[in-house]
Amino acid sequence: MLRAALGDRVDTSERARADARADKSGHAASGTPLAVVHAASVADVQETLRIATATSTPVVPRGAGTGLAGAANAGAGEIALSLRGMDRILEVRPDDLLAVVEPGILNADLNAALAEEGLWWAPDPASRAISTVGGNIATGAGGLLCAKYGVVRDAVLGVDLVLADGRLLTLGRRTVKGVSGLDLTALVIGSEGTLGVVVGATLKLRRLIPGEVCTLAATFADVRTAAEASAAVTASGAQPAIMELMDAASLAAVHALLLLDPPTPGAAQLTIQTDGPAAMAEAGEIAEVLRTAGGTVTVSRDREEGERLLAIRRSMHPAMETLGTTLIEDVSVPRSALPAMFDEIARVEREHGVVIPTVAHAGDGNLHPNFIFAGERDAAGIVEVPAYIWDAADDLFRAALRLGGTLTGEHGVGVLKSRWLVDELGADQWELQRQIMRAFDPLGILNPGKVFVS
Amino acid sequence: MLRAALGDRVDTSERARADARADKSGHAASGTPLAVVHAASVADVQETLRIATATSTPVVPRGAGTGLAGAANAGAGEIALSLRGMDRILEVRPDDLLAVVEPGILNADLNAALAEEGLWWAPDPASRAISTVGGNIATGAGGLLCAKYGVVRDAVLGVDLVLADGRLLTLGRRTVKGVSGLDLTALVIGSEGTLGVVVGATLKLRRLIPGEVCTLAATFADVRTAAEASAAVTASGAQPAIMELMDAASLAAVHALLLLDPPTPGAAQLTIQTDGPAAMAEAGEIAEVLRTAGGTVTVSRDREEGERLLAIRRSMHPAMETLGTTLIEDVSVPRSALPAMFDEIARVEREHGVVIPTVAHAGDGNLHPNFIFAGERDAAGIVEVPAYIWDAADDLFRAALRLGGTLTGEHGVGVLKSRWLVDELGADQWELQRQIMRAFDPLGILNPGKVFVS
Ligand SMILES: Cc1cc2nc3c(=O)[nH]c(=O)nc-3n(C[C@H](O)[C@H](O)[C@H](O)COP(=O)(O)OP(=O)(O)OC[C@H]3O[C@@H](n4cnc5c(N)ncnc54)[C@H](O)[C@@H]3O)c2cc1C
Ligand SMILES: Cc1cc2nc3c(=O)[nH]c(=O)nc-3n(C[C@H](O)[C@H](O)[C@H](O)COP(=O)(O)OP(=O)(O)OC[C@H]3O[C@@H](n4cnc5c(N)ncnc54)[C@H](O)[C@@H]3O)c2cc1C
Repeated sequence: MLRAALGDRVDTSERARADARADKSGHAASGTPLAVVHAASVADVQETLRIATATSTPVVPRGAGTGLAGAANAGAGEIALSLRGMDRILEVRPDDLLAVVEPGILNADLNAALAEEGLWWAPDPASRAISTVGGNIATGAGGLLCAKYGVVRDAVLGVDLVLADGRLLTLGRRTVKGVSGLDLTALVIGSEGTLGVVVGATLKLRRLIPGEVCTLAATFADVRTAAEASAAVTASGAQPAIMELMDAASLAAVHALLLLDPPTPGAAQLTIQTDGPAAMAEAGEIAEVLRTAGGTVTVSRDREEGERLLAIRRSMHPAMETLGTTLIEDVSVPRSALPAMFDEIARVEREHGVVIPTVAHAGDGNLHPNFIFAGERDAAGIVEVPAYIWDAADDLFRAALRLGGTLTGEHGVGVLKSRWLVDELGADQWELQRQIMRAFDPLGILNPGKVFVS
Repeated sequence: MLRAALGDRVDTSERARADARADKSGHAASGTPLAVVHAASVADVQETLRIATATSTPVVPRGAGTGLAGAANAGAGEIALSLRGMDRILEVRPDDLLAVVEPGILNADLNAALAEEGLWWAPDPASRAISTVGGNIATGAGGLLCAKYGVVRDAVLGVDLVLADGRLLTLGRRTVKGVSGLDLTALVIGSEGTLGVVVGATLKLRRLIPGEVCTLAATFADVRTAAEASAAVTASGAQPAIMELMDAASLAAVHALLLLDPPTPGAAQLTIQTDGPAAMAEAGEIAEVLRTAGGTVTVSRDREEGERLLAIRRSMHPAMETLGTTLIEDVSVPRSALPAMFDEIARVEREHGVVIPTVAHAGDGNLHPNFIFAGERDAAGIVEVPAYIWDAADDLFRAALRLGGTLTGEHGVGVLKSRWLVDELGADQWELQRQIMRAFDPLGILNPGKVFVS
């Protein structure tokens, strides 16, 4: 039936079906999906969903599969619906600071095209070179620059959404302001493929920031002092474009990987960038705050030196892989609670006997604790996270919630965190969210088993 | 039953019930509500809604009643639930840039308190001295500064919501980032009392902007040229804090009211403010753009002179009242479409034989056309808008939608625009939104007859 309607956009090869089982979390769905549909048009998506509804077949929307929560993983009896091939830029309006795009375009490809017109779409997940705009929207992605320039939630005016039954809705608008009816665009952002398939998006753009970029690197005796310093920067009223924190274990691992001199044992680091016309003055003020907080600070206005300093932060992923297999976590806390959260991480390490190198987007209180364990990934990168690691993660999640935080700052709930969602939302809200989902998808065929699982 | 539970917070006086029939739109509900409940606590709100659910009695939440869409108006058989008395600031956190408040506090009172700590909540409706934060949230209010500093939608981290059945939900979070589950906070913003009663809010604050403020006033031969100039400012990449446009009729009326020299016939005006450390430099660049676009420009860095210039814009409301009775409208279009929208307004004036003085938040494409008609307001300010005015408004709304715009940029749908909502959303989306509303309020007792009316 699919094949008759969609011809060779329906891929049933062993390879494609195996790839669709997993994302970059290392988690894989059990079993293999029926087929991968490579949608080439809105009509393809609608047709796929009409057939899925008629046959009650689950559909798992998929961008580039770089997610870290297992949310795009398709298993037995399911159709994986890939949007990656729908990757055109349909319109760019410098005068209205908006662009209309298809969902499958890679974030970095979009931004390369926008840069030619002096524009950019601000969300900058570290995965921007390999993840799609549709995936960024469906996960509500964040990035390094988002403390100053906002996350996906702040950068989408509207989305075109195909519902589970194949109907196409145009949500949101092309105007910067508007309050007619409920804000369904906001509801779709971060909905992880459970409400519908994003087949188009109207994005809110910014102009490239003129002026220079200053980079500060500050080392501190320990991670708590570094966290207090980052909280002091926030409290001082300064607004860095980037403020990244690396704890001692991350820093040591990256230095080893990049063959740099080993850092002082126990030392943690803040890497900060300021930008715009006042970049230099702001960097000076921030340097003062950091020194007062006990940091050893270097300031550079050289872009290449800045890139070199940030490269240390960007090498976190490969550095972790040298330590073992990792579960990458993603809690977020109010910024003033960063020091307390690092205390909790140290406690969890101690009590559970695990190593948890941690980096943080300190400018917005979002931490990525990396749980290290022994365990081999298979050829496809798939690995089972052992129960004792989940126990430690459970302890850490609850600590974040106690501090007024959230389970996930940017990676989403997916499969891996669905069992904790009710702890954060409360039973009443969880149930209400599920009912709202059912208003979009009465049969429950869109990404079942993700996010809302009882 | 209400009285037994809530004592003298239940007000059945003639006066209170009559006041609750109307907001500042001039529209009044038919009939008079059963009672006004002056809630003093979350428990009062929960109790009221429990009783309302048990008795299937409609409840109309109400802040300060300054709305312009009739959304807070309560009529026969309904309970008006006033939140105005719940006006405490519960917490201010300069380090986390957040405040937790009750819904009834006036926007200006909150900002006066925050200013003492060097903070502010950015949404600045022209009604900020008389409208509540809860009302601002329920309408998704905007203001003069919002092109640069955002609308309510950008400034709320979470809300506490009492559902129709009296249950209390805590939506959103205290962290700046978070993607766990669906974004119900965003759904509540602008929902005009149809999803639940906002009994608390966690607001995202900014620091007061240091540096000076520069004010530019530019006059143009006609409104189209002024609109093109404002679009040119946006397209130039400059980001004014305020950019307000007044057409010839508004300008003339205000000058007459304030006893200023009459403006050149036909002339329109842009009033622009820049702020922050680069205010002066930005003002210089903007002045250039305005002159190139044909404007006669004055620039002032004196705060008082700036206030004097803005006072002209702020006198729009009283000035309109000197011309007759007004229906204040609120369409929004993509910024590049401002000149075309002014052409449409001129056409509607011509074809319908009505006068429509118009001001615009030009920085974000939001226009307030004021339809003038003969007709007396009664002592309570209530007046019936004649059918020929609605015909002209209908023509204007459809023109805005054709230009990629929306029915309402900031005032909401309420009663007055509910019949056009389906034209903007489309039947499928309209129906889906209604189903979502029903997930919150299965009996349909929350603000019935508003927004979603078939
Ligand atoms: C090295 C690395 C670094 C990363 N850094 C960051 C970071 O800094 N910030 C961050 O937020 N994330 C980061 N991530 C996680 C991931 O890249 C993001 O979640 C990204 O937004 C996923 O995009 P994708 O196209 O790969 O989506 P997928 O992984 O294919 O899908 C993710 C979810 O979105 C849904 N989905 C995808 N496309 C659509 C669509 N068109 N319509 C409806 N639903 C859809 C899927 O069903 C699934 O639920 C990182 C990942 C890696 C591997
Ligand atoms: C002179 C003047 C200038 C104005 N300028 C602007 C402007 O610049 N920008 C702008 O956006 N608006 C403006 N307005 C419109 C109005 O002030 C706003 O809509 C304001 O946000 C309404 O707040 P309120 O407290 O008066 O709410 P109300 O009028 O009492 O109620 C408005 C809506 O919100 C609901 N509501 C109120 N409180 C709650 C609550 N706690 N929980 C759930 N629902 C609730 C009501 O049911 C109703 O649907 C102006 C009005 C006037 C009279």
